[in-house]
Amino acid sequence: MFLEKKTFNDFLTSPEGIASNILTNRLKSLVNHKIINFKLNPLNKKVKWYYLTDIGAESFPVVIEMIKWSIRNLNNDFGPHSIKWFEQNTKESNKITSDKAISDYKIFRKKLLNDSKNQS
Amino acid sequence: MFLEKKTFNDFLTSPEGIASNILTNRLKSLVNHKIINFKLNPLNKKVKWYYLTDIGAESFPVVIEMIKWSIRNLNNDFGPHSIKWFEQNTKESNKITSDKAISDYKIFRKKLLNDSKNQS
Repeated sequence: MFLEKKTFNDFLTSPEGIASNILTNRLKSLVNHKIINFKLNPLNKKVKWYYLTDIGAESFPVVIEMIKWSIRNLNNDFGPHSIKWFEQNTKESNKITSDKAISDYKIFRKKLLNDSKNQS
Repeated sequence: MFLEKKTFNDFLTSPEGIASNILTNRLKSLVNHKIINFKLNPLNKKVKWYYLTDIGAESFPVVIEMIKWSIRNLNNDFGPHSIKWFEQNTKESNKITSDKAISDYKIFRKKLLNDSKNQS
């Protein structure tokens, strides 16, 4: 979701390879905890567009520390998004990186919610 | 473990209220990923003393960001350890807080491992 993925299928086909039933439970739990929410795709009401609430978006600093820890300590392959974030973090403070990421995310979300309103 | 808890029973009786089978799986998984390890209690070989490896201890910054996020965004009751960390973080940088926490943890771990060696 931080990478602006928004549908069940986007998450299901992500490189993490999460099982469909576990993904369903996680999304329900995150909605119940008000960390994420969803709008129906106005062109296909069967598809939910998930997005981070403000509370969810505020967890960016946690994700940034996780990425930094993973890159330093685990022998995984990392995608270009993670590597880019890591490189930024060696140049600027976490606070600046996460404030930027949160602000970018909110622009993406605003567009998503407006699209949805205009067409429904 | 960050709070210097070390036995299965310490974790099981923690306020999180984790189920015994899930705790068993988590501990196995963390040992397999070399994030934690254990020594047998020299006075009771049935009891494992779990501790964070260097890789595990390096995840303190992630935990600090999680605590800060939780205190800001969730309506949970927090224990004295979490509140203390949060208060420190308003005064000093995350880097200083986590470096201190890692260094304190390594002193605890050294004592744990030496105890074990002396008596086994």
